[in-house]
Amino acid sequence: MLKVVRSRCRVIYGDTDAMGVAYYSNFLRWFEIGRNEWLRSAGVTYAQIERCGTYAPVSEVYCHYLNPVRYDDWILIDTDVEYVRRASIKFEYRILLEGSEEEAAWGYTVHGFVDGKGRIVRTPQLLVDALRTMGAGPLVGRARHTG
Amino acid sequence: MLKVVRSRCRVIYGDTDAMGVAYYSNFLRWFEIGRNEWLRSAGVTYAQIERCGTYAPVSEVYCHYLNPVRYDDWILIDTDVEYVRRASIKFEYRILLEGSEEEAAWGYTVHGFVDGKGRIVRTPQLLVDALRTMGAGPLVGRARHTG
Amino acid sequence: MLKVVRSRCRVIYGDTDAMGVAYYSNFLRWFEIGRNEWLRSAGVTYAQIERCGTYAPVSEVYCHYLNPVRYDDWILIDTDVEYVRRASIKFEYRILLEGSEEEAAWGYTVHGFVDGKGRIVRTPQLLVDALRTMGAGPLVGRARHTG
Amino acid sequence: MLKVVRSRCRVIYGDTDAMGVAYYSNFLRWFEIGRNEWLRSAGVTYAQIERCGTYAPVSEVYCHYLNPVRYDDWILIDTDVEYVRRASIKFEYRILLEGSEEEAAWGYTVHGFVDGKGRIVRTPQLLVDALRTMGAGPLVGRARHTG
Repeated sequence: MLKVVRSRCRVIYGDTDAMGVAYYSNFLRWFEIGRNEWLRSAGVTYAQIERCGTYAPVSEVYCHYLNPVRYDDWILIDTDVEYVRRASIKFEYRILLEGSEEEAAWGYTVHGFVDGKGRIVRTPQLLVDALRTMGAGPLVGRARHTG
Repeated sequence: MLKVVRSRCRVIYGDTDAMGVAYYSNFLRWFEIGRNEWLRSAGVTYAQIERCGTYAPVSEVYCHYLNPVRYDDWILIDTDVEYVRRASIKFEYRILLEGSEEEAAWGYTVHGFVDGKGRIVRTPQLLVDALRTMGAGPLVGRARHTG
Repeated sequence: MLKVVRSRCRVIYGDTDAMGVAYYSNFLRWFEIGRNEWLRSAGVTYAQIERCGTYAPVSEVYCHYLNPVRYDDWILIDTDVEYVRRASIKFEYRILLEGSEEEAAWGYTVHGFVDGKGRIVRTPQLLVDALRTMGAGPLVGRARHTG
Repeated sequence: MLKVVRSRCRVIYGDTDAMGVAYYSNFLRWFEIGRNEWLRSAGVTYAQIERCGTYAPVSEVYCHYLNPVRYDDWILIDTDVEYVRRASIKFEYRILLEGSEEEAAWGYTVHGFVDGKGRIVRTPQLLVDALRTMGAGPLVGRARHTG
């Protein structure tokens, strides 16, 4: 683990389904918001990574749904990086309901790095440098910069 | 008007919202299904148009919602081309509920043609040829191949 | 017109399409964010309106797309109420790109008020009162509180 | 495992993202299409289950992305039920590209059964009966109707 970054998002009507709660695929959009902001906190944006010719498509996603999220709720997205390897990165997410701080869901995504032709490439230097910034402090030893 | 092409789509839970009916933006996805199939019936696919370097971004959309669409309903998407001009095309759509044939919505989209750099270009020849096929018969005079 | 309320939203990767710009149906989600915030500024939430047993399904939507919106852009959603009638309300929206203030799109939605069984009902008092708050000042005369 | 049911779906432009491939959350929509059709093949619809007052919200989802899915591709969704327990069900999905039969993704969802107030309830009899139909034949012993 490096450093948890909190994002915040308001649930809209379009996120809900006929059960009156947020449809399950929307949590993956919120995961994306979380990792965008985590990277930004580290001083790099995913847009910058792409401009350098590297892409980070999702190879795995998991989500455990614990409590329903409803229209007009504020949700908090706590994002962290579990590991960075030679050609991949794993983000972890916790979705909380603002106010109660009740956990609505948690999950993770794993991303491989590829070039414009889909060939596997190393984790971009831009990101490695950014991760160093985030790992400053006592938590740094728990990040695995191996691979 | 040229020739109405009917597509068919099943409403999923993910299309619905907390009101128990399809969320309004999903009709724009159904419009897209309709125009994809209209073009295919005309012997051309939008993917082919793009491979020739021409794009057709939406410049206008209108939708009038008449009756609710619910989970697991089959909807019919009746699509037609209202006009083709030198650098644009207008599609019209009617969304019907299968069974009752009740009209759920109708609307239109207008698309301009642009190249990869966003510059306005002429309606691609590929599409002009395809439209001729669709206009065969008594309806052809109502299409405005002006510009 | 009553009073313009500005909302702000970051474009995510999930909003984009293969053309590299925001897919056209996402603007309807942004319109929803705009009207949610407009109502909140007026001292009422749509959730409150629903809790009183009144729903405001969209009956019409129009959007004119002017300039592309891209991943990671901040957009501004300027929302206003064009009219309120006995059983309907019309919102207007302008989507601007933050920074350049370039107009990306503008559009409107019309909503009818219905009860839980879909029967037309009067504009809820809760909302009429809220609208009075928003119309305070020289603009109030331009709102049509007719029916 | 019971019996694989194949569904078919065309990828639309609205499913793609700026990387030119289907955005990762759309696979969860396709999973839903798969389980809707699996249930229908078993002689029951999820709509019927809800009309009996039982809901099956997703408690877990996993997806492993193997190969990109592109605009206008036909995808095949092979769905199966891995287990049914006293108050839950697990579906498994494989997404294939039609033509090449290349595997694009596989994953699973776990659903708990709840009543209208969110209280855990037993797997509805309607579904248990339907599952018997699906498990007819040599595969039935592998289904765990325990719980």
